[in-house]
Amino acid sequence: MHNRTNGPSRLEPLLRKLSDEGVDAFLVSDLHVIRWLTGFSGSSARMLLSPEKSVILTDFRYAEQVKNEVGIMEAMIVSNGYADSLAGLGFLQGGRVAVQEDHLTLREFGQLTEKLAGLTLVPVHDFFDGFRTIKSDLEVEYLKHAASISEQVLEKVVPMISPEVTEIEIAAEISYWHRRLGAEGDSFDPIVASGPRSALPHARPQCETFRPGSLIVMDFGCVWRGYASDQTRTFALGKAPREAKAIHDIVREAQQLGLDSARPGMRGSELDALVRSFIAERGYGEAFGHSLGHGVGIEVHESPKLGSKSQDTLPAGSVFTIEPGIYLPGRYGVRIEDTVLMGENGAAPFQRYTKELVQL
Amino acid sequence: MHNRTNGPSRLEPLLRKLSDEGVDAFLVSDLHVIRWLTGFSGSSARMLLSPEKSVILTDFRYAEQVKNEVGIMEAMIVSNGYADSLAGLGFLQGGRVAVQEDHLTLREFGQLTEKLAGLTLVPVHDFFDGFRTIKSDLEVEYLKHAASISEQVLEKVVPMISPEVTEIEIAAEISYWHRRLGAEGDSFDPIVASGPRSALPHARPQCETFRPGSLIVMDFGCVWRGYASDQTRTFALGKAPREAKAIHDIVREAQQLGLDSARPGMRGSELDALVRSFIAERGYGEAFGHSLGHGVGIEVHESPKLGSKSQDTLPAGSVFTIEPGIYLPGRYGVRIEDTVLMGENGAAPFQRYTKELVQL
Repeated sequence: MHNRTNGPSRLEPLLRKLSDEGVDAFLVSDLHVIRWLTGFSGSSARMLLSPEKSVILTDFRYAEQVKNEVGIMEAMIVSNGYADSLAGLGFLQGGRVAVQEDHLTLREFGQLTEKLAGLTLVPVHDFFDGFRTIKSDLEVEYLKHAASISEQVLEKVVPMISPEVTEIEIAAEISYWHRRLGAEGDSFDPIVASGPRSALPHARPQCETFRPGSLIVMDFGCVWRGYASDQTRTFALGKAPREAKAIHDIVREAQQLGLDSARPGMRGSELDALVRSFIAERGYGEAFGHSLGHGVGIEVHESPKLGSKSQDTLPAGSVFTIEPGIYLPGRYGVRIEDTVLMGENGAAPFQRYTKELVQL
Repeated sequence: MHNRTNGPSRLEPLLRKLSDEGVDAFLVSDLHVIRWLTGFSGSSARMLLSPEKSVILTDFRYAEQVKNEVGIMEAMIVSNGYADSLAGLGFLQGGRVAVQEDHLTLREFGQLTEKLAGLTLVPVHDFFDGFRTIKSDLEVEYLKHAASISEQVLEKVVPMISPEVTEIEIAAEISYWHRRLGAEGDSFDPIVASGPRSALPHARPQCETFRPGSLIVMDFGCVWRGYASDQTRTFALGKAPREAKAIHDIVREAQQLGLDSARPGMRGSELDALVRSFIAERGYGEAFGHSLGHGVGIEVHESPKLGSKSQDTLPAGSVFTIEPGIYLPGRYGVRIEDTVLMGENGAAPFQRYTKELVQL
């Protein structure tokens, strides 16, 4: 079954860009780029792109799989390391070959330099980001399906929260239901953070039960046919303290402001600044310590970035999160996150789950 | 809570080896080495080891966690990238700094070369493998506990196998029960491979039910306090075909031969050859297409390697798998795997689960 999200139409603009940048071929080491372009989902591969010939290289473990998954280019099974096999291809003599400097180890670079002695290796980065940012209709379909699986999981696990269960048990249920509903797995380790841990944006679930009166941040996602989901809601067990409710209101309004203000072509930093100012005006500027969001696709964190230092724009067809938060260390935290598709007129969220503070 | 598996006693021999090899400091990029030495379990860090001062660097997301987890050295929170922060440390002037060529990207190497202009960067590999191979008593305890969790999970999920459930459902149960029993998660995606897929050593669970008369390879493990487990058993649903049973017998005897023949100081390639010859003599040499085993510790695949090309020895105190298999493409496959601790007199397996062919 070939990956219908890709195909020759995706390869051509890459080859044109190669040519525009004056390189003869591109050696790809990033498995996410390889999956995006070819559909190959194995754990070891390289891919060589060139106008003469494009080829995916993997090892014997994936000999069957690569045949089943990859239709867009020839596959080659290597036995003595990638550098040797690439040298054996022969058709690269004397050319300039781009390599991914963010995904190539110093050691492999050394091996390539030695084995491909006639070539010039050209380190580049972010070459594929612009292409990956604009999702095809089929990619949007996969992303929406991943989002809908995680929303179904949210519906299933929220009623399980009680003073008798632990964060870890709820996290285990999330992973379980992701798989049961057909996902390949979690897109990242589920965050189920209650009480003071809700104030840690990357808390790990603990073997501790939920306490009445505490806030609970639930942030998780899955992978469906290679594409990720990501969403966050914050709940209260029993009656939430007054300031917790107030903070939840601010975050909810801030998140809605982000949704309503997003326009195609806007810079990620601009949307971040807009939401950040809103939170700062309410007196919690210092308590929102991370970026507003990030692109979602084959990777759960990819371009475009929505942070104060980001140079990325938010084009129509891009998919990204909007996830402001307020964190009061030692007390509680709130985060609300949707994944959105940027359309011609604005951002449409994939998630439908309520953003009111649900008191369980 | 500091990681009791490590401590200053682990740092000193590393610093001696640094000095022996004529370098002044070591910049570590491999998160597994960082976790092994410091207990830090976050997803981004660097570590600088030197006789003057050792320091772990991470970002704001882990400011609290690094304080809680790391007692062995000072922690530093970076905001502008690791290269800048390392340059700011100041005490490295003019020295030789080892870097991990297998774990450093070409890009970061470029940044370090620029920012630490007065230093000589020395690419090295496998520097820590020898140290990591010999497990401390506490590491063995953690590894055994991880193994016991996965064995409990095997006991729970095997009775669930029937013609009414799918491979994916069983895989989801495995992940679920790992977490419910206190593991951090799976040490790798569970393999639940039935029918012709049992002949694929790295099959991914499918949304297909189990068929009577088929073999089922179950290969999975978990992580407990940072340490991995790994084990495989092969089952039959209903009555297995005659050749399947015969192959299972051969693999079981081969695996037992591996267990019985392992002696401290032996080469990994020697044990591999011994078991491989046994299988070849039975007529299935071509059908055993992977290595005999691999070390298990902080990583589920680490040193020592047990394969035909491996130069590694199997010292007392090392922990590794013994996992022969026979794979008949398109028909069925069998693999049996234990994780063992090498003692002064031989190998002791962590697993107790029967290796007879259980027909469910």
